[in-house]
Amino acid sequence: MKPRLIALDWGTSSLRAYLLSGAGEILDERAKSWGIMHVPDGDFATAFATIVQGWQGPNGTLPVIAAGMIGSAQGWHEVPYQACPVGLTQLAAGLASLVSDGARLRIVPGVIDPGAVPNVMRGEEAQIIGALDRAPDLYPRACLIMPGTHSKWVEVIDGKIQTFATYMTGEVFALLRDHSILGRPARQGAASGGLPQELANQRWRESFERGLVAARESGPSGAMSLLFSARTLVLVGRLGAQDSLDYLSGLLIGEELRCALLARTSAETAPVALIGDPRLCERYEMALQLFGVSDVRTIPNTSVAGLWRIAVSAGLV
Amino acid sequence: MKPRLIALDWGTSSLRAYLLSGAGEILDERAKSWGIMHVPDGDFATAFATIVQGWQGPNGTLPVIAAGMIGSAQGWHEVPYQACPVGLTQLAAGLASLVSDGARLRIVPGVIDPGAVPNVMRGEEAQIIGALDRAPDLYPRACLIMPGTHSKWVEVIDGKIQTFATYMTGEVFALLRDHSILGRPARQGAASGGLPQELANQRWRESFERGLVAARESGPSGAMSLLFSARTLVLVGRLGAQDSLDYLSGLLIGEELRCALLARTSAETAPVALIGDPRLCERYEMALQLFGVSDVRTIPNTSVAGLWRIAVSAGLV
Repeated sequence: MKPRLIALDWGTSSLRAYLLSGAGEILDERAKSWGIMHVPDGDFATAFATIVQGWQGPNGTLPVIAAGMIGSAQGWHEVPYQACPVGLTQLAAGLASLVSDGARLRIVPGVIDPGAVPNVMRGEEAQIIGALDRAPDLYPRACLIMPGTHSKWVEVIDGKIQTFATYMTGEVFALLRDHSILGRPARQGAASGGLPQELANQRWRESFERGLVAARESGPSGAMSLLFSARTLVLVGRLGAQDSLDYLSGLLIGEELRCALLARTSAETAPVALIGDPRLCERYEMALQLFGVSDVRTIPNTSVAGLWRIAVSAGLV
Repeated sequence: MKPRLIALDWGTSSLRAYLLSGAGEILDERAKSWGIMHVPDGDFATAFATIVQGWQGPNGTLPVIAAGMIGSAQGWHEVPYQACPVGLTQLAAGLASLVSDGARLRIVPGVIDPGAVPNVMRGEEAQIIGALDRAPDLYPRACLIMPGTHSKWVEVIDGKIQTFATYMTGEVFALLRDHSILGRPARQGAASGGLPQELANQRWRESFERGLVAARESGPSGAMSLLFSARTLVLVGRLGAQDSLDYLSGLLIGEELRCALLARTSAETAPVALIGDPRLCERYEMALQLFGVSDVRTIPNTSVAGLWRIAVSAGLV
């Protein structure tokens, strides 16, 4: 099949490139750890030329579309945010254009929800478009949960991003694991290594659920007052040192759910979908069930589908 | 005046030593950055001998009393926790004894509140005893707030530590400031340097109060959902990059107050006292006022007074 589009998912920590056919199928893909903060010598043009090398072919230049932090002030070319509500039409109309070494790139704008507490996203909007394209039951409204470093809870109405919130759950977890007193047992090697797979699997689930339940039962005072228990429960012998990070993960994801579900009023009956890394989505699915939200579907990474859809809408393909 | 006691406040990040008279007055004091994690070569005995050098005098050995993380599993000599309720009598009776190079040290036990969510302290108990000794109005009951890396909220009844909670506010703030995306503007040098002192003073207060109010108004969903606003408000030009850390400090201290004041039911009418670093106590006093708690007294560091009182009670002096 003939290549028709190059799509780039260029975020903070990684760069993924896809060569797509006229039907949006992936013909080839490449990944580098060249997130915008780790591009060799900060040279975006060379990083781009390297990752798409050989894809352009002898017959001229394929259109290129990119989404993610590459369009931020710290990226290659800053693209203004589009203000909510934002759907396919607004994103396609807001593409910014950049010429590099003869190739023309289009960069998808990020989205801003300019409320009393403003929220921004870059990259998730392409995933959302991809999810909407694949799952017609997300119309007329849906709640999309995108777990990660900065988890997003997105309310989508009639295919448009209506409003969204950000929870820094993944980043706070990583900081506590890597730098705080709570991560010390795990950093000192108290991992649950050596356990048979099935037992290890059961074990993280138990510790994780214990953290979730503690967060859920914390009531309005919330789980921040419980963080220290990830240490003290170990001190008093009521939690294994090797289990404390899974418990902490449960506390933090539980706190995210506690807050987000309290904030979720109008869309209460809308379907809930998880989008993102399958292992992380599994944790969130467990968590949602424990919080009484059981009808949840998981949609794997939909960046490529979204980039394709935006490119088509913009007439690039 | 004749020296009668050596008192050590030996915590995670620093070691303070005091030479005390028969009336508990400070005759001499020394400080080193030899917290238990930073003792040269991990040699506690040499660190001790160095900091008290010359204090013992020719007429024999003075008694030595120490409190803090020095009595933890990571310290010099582990001393079991005393379970709440704990007052002067229990602490004096629980002193552990250690002989080093001819000198006998007594180490004050930590305190554990063995609830569903266990809590522990090491070092704060000496401060509490000191505060109770100085402020008779903390009888028959009081709420003591000890801000810091791991803030403690302590309910004291009839001079005994009845129950307490821990908030990792200081540690979470430091992690976000030093390692997260929220601290990047400040790390990149957007400090409010160059402002006249009075203006700088007004400025941090405004940003800090703004964070406090946001946390207070967050309702039951809490301020964790607002952390990202320390970045987005800067992005949209509604908060100066140089002000974002003070705003973040307000969010986190506000979240601590929101949780702790919700949890505080039985002791509602008890007097509230802040104990600790005066600059941090100033922030907490501002915060408490904004949360409707206006009758707050601040008691400066009372470790020495507490160590003296425990030593007297144990018959060391």
